[in-house]
Amino acid sequence: MEHTRKVVLFIAVSLDGYIAKTDGSLEWLFAVEGEGSNGYTEFYDTIDTMISGRATYEHVLQMMNNEYPHYDKHNIVLTSSGKGEDPKISFSNEDVASIVKKLRREPGKNIWVVGGSKVIEAFMSENLIDEYIITVTPVLLGEGIPLFTKFPQEIKLKLTNSRTYGQFVQSTYVRAE
Amino acid sequence: MEHTRKVVLFIAVSLDGYIAKTDGSLEWLFAVEGEGSNGYTEFYDTIDTMISGRATYEHVLQMMNNEYPHYDKHNIVLTSSGKGEDPKISFSNEDVASIVKKLRREPGKNIWVVGGSKVIEAFMSENLIDEYIITVTPVLLGEGIPLFTKFPQEIKLKLTNSRTYGQFVQSTYVRAE
Repeated sequence: MEHTRKVVLFIAVSLDGYIAKTDGSLEWLFAVEGEGSNGYTEFYDTIDTMISGRATYEHVLQMMNNEYPHYDKHNIVLTSSGKGEDPKISFSNEDVASIVKKLRREPGKNIWVVGGSKVIEAFMSENLIDEYIITVTPVLLGEGIPLFTKFPQEIKLKLTNSRTYGQFVQSTYVRAE
Repeated sequence: MEHTRKVVLFIAVSLDGYIAKTDGSLEWLFAVEGEGSNGYTEFYDTIDTMISGRATYEHVLQMMNNEYPHYDKHNIVLTSSGKGEDPKISFSNEDVASIVKKLRREPGKNIWVVGGSKVIEAFMSENLIDEYIITVTPVLLGEGIPLFTKFPQEIKLKLTNSRTYGQFVQSTYVRAE
């Protein structure tokens, strides 16, 4: 049994692989009929740490009228300066590999890579994701911000679960090797 | 009930959205443990016509030592000249919208868009696909030939089925509108 805390990418994507439209909008996602919280509530219980990019963090703040909804978790927000204004958030400009290495040494629950695309790219280029929970949305956007950009190595995964939540197909993968 | 023959894209794709490696190879796909024919046999019975690109047609010929395995179907192979050597194949350089329009006027079973990427792009740019059967493979390739490239319109789909075949997740979508 593996008890080390896992780094998890939990994200929704269009059928053609985009996490948002080019302008960042997500209406296409919210318009889809799911079921309950589409697995979010159960997932949220398995993590105690979130790693976000600054743009994603600010986008969430804005959507929630400046009431950040994740203070129950340890929040690491990546900014180029390593600085930010909220004392309840750990702002960092360390590389993600070093951050993950430190976090794995500490006991705790799983770590959620929230994104956006630059953060995901940094994790993928170093193959740092242990588990992928990908929720596929029945929409073809035609263009947008891609979930996966190019990364240097082929990564073999193992499907551990797949289920539908209404119109969503949510599949869970772990590293195969 | 809709009885018009449908244009179906039945294809396997890596989790990051590629139908083949950059060099066209598919070993990553054949290495995955599925179940039975992974839905292929049942699907193949629902179609009587195949539309392929010339490169795909030649790739199949080569893999099968020049014994084309699909003579039980009506084969349309798209070539820039509209000409080819096999009298049992309809070679065409018509645009795909006209081909589909003609086929839909004739009675028959469904039509399989086999690809490759240029053919799929031509169909997507005109929103000609009625049903998408996408089989997701648990591999992240990092780069390759993408299933979906940019196309001009957002297409809303409806999930009609999703199931696993071993390590594969196969989801079926139809146009929502």
